[in-house]
Amino acid sequence: MKPALILLSGGLDSATVLAIAMDRGYQVTAMSFDYGQRHRLELERSAAMCRSMGIPHVQIHIPLDQFGGSALTDPELDVPDVPEAEIGTGGIPITYVPGRNMIFLSIAAAYCELHGITEIFIGTNAVDYSGYPDCRPAFIDAMTRTVNLGTRFADEARKLTIHTPLASMGKADIIRTGLKLGVDYGLTTTCYNPFPDGTPCGKCDACKLRRRGFREAGSRDPLTYPETD
Amino acid sequence: MKPALILLSGGLDSATVLAIAMDRGYQVTAMSFDYGQRHRLELERSAAMCRSMGIPHVQIHIPLDQFGGSALTDPELDVPDVPEAEIGTGGIPITYVPGRNMIFLSIAAAYCELHGITEIFIGTNAVDYSGYPDCRPAFIDAMTRTVNLGTRFADEARKLTIHTPLASMGKADIIRTGLKLGVDYGLTTTCYNPFPDGTPCGKCDACKLRRRGFREAGSRDPLTYPETD
Repeated sequence: MKPALILLSGGLDSATVLAIAMDRGYQVTAMSFDYGQRHRLELERSAAMCRSMGIPHVQIHIPLDQFGGSALTDPELDVPDVPEAEIGTGGIPITYVPGRNMIFLSIAAAYCELHGITEIFIGTNAVDYSGYPDCRPAFIDAMTRTVNLGTRFADEARKLTIHTPLASMGKADIIRTGLKLGVDYGLTTTCYNPFPDGTPCGKCDACKLRRRGFREAGSRDPLTYPETD
Repeated sequence: MKPALILLSGGLDSATVLAIAMDRGYQVTAMSFDYGQRHRLELERSAAMCRSMGIPHVQIHIPLDQFGGSALTDPELDVPDVPEAEIGTGGIPITYVPGRNMIFLSIAAAYCELHGITEIFIGTNAVDYSGYPDCRPAFIDAMTRTVNLGTRFADEARKLTIHTPLASMGKADIIRTGLKLGVDYGLTTTCYNPFPDGTPCGKCDACKLRRRGFREAGSRDPLTYPETD
């Protein structure tokens, strides 16, 4: 079996990507990043998911909260409540973490280079998304080129491929695909600002896109949202 | 004054780059990385250099030693003693740290994005070098493109530039340039494997390239090497 590294955030998208990679027959290793995100639950869910599936899990600490500037890493900034129809239309939102996927993919590529892995899977998606520049296909293409010029891959026949199986899928398609592959979405977390007990807020961009996705997929989200919604 | 971020390793090259950026009139901030390198002296020298010049200094911890695979981060691997004429000719050496400049530049770019900085200076050089893929101009070009597609720069008029003023300079040229600009090379460290008191080994690639550079520049290296050489 060919090895592959899956970037796993504990969210709906990356859980689906993990299932897709396994369905394609890859021998998967998951990598998660502790970057000082306020939604620490991501890390617990990623680890629990890997444990339950018997998948090796590498966790890396990168102090992006040292920089601030994002509502996901700076406790002084609030996660906004944007009307559903406006998500992804107002420019780059405050939940964007500068350089996040670029930094993650650089580190993932270094790991791959060292472990003889040539396939990375990442759940970037530019359809039902918040408008993050590091989720767009042009960025992924440039990043792939950079890795293959700036690492050992440059001098070898093998090259790194970054797979983005969700790139052109809407959220409902992603959910349908995952359900078909047996993903337990009850193990995932999507919310940018969950309650201390893990209950999603229901109001952030990520919650809204997720809930709309389940509605459109005609399926019930196994997560429970606050009753006030 | 226009701000610029300088990647500072405490070595001869980056100290020269710092002086070049200041000479060009930039208001400089230096960034150094603690990536688990065996030559910890780099970090002390970087900090001391910035203190003595009154330059703001940001230090970031990235656990690349968690990966191993390089003689610079894995204490189990020895720094080799390569004959001077063979340096840079034997493929990518064991002192290469996978993904290093890609990871550093990703993080530096995120910092710039947040702080309104559009200029990064890095001391990469592909003339008197050890054969590292992440020092080649094609990599720097691809990296620049990636940053400008994968960050806030993608949606703004301002774009990031990565300056590599040493790109086509030999080591002797670099030293001559630095001396003209008043760089105190006695404050720098170049060795991959210094003695506990900071004395350079004199035998690693980096020491050999440095010493040849001073010889060719007709100047005396202010560092003292072991007498057995």
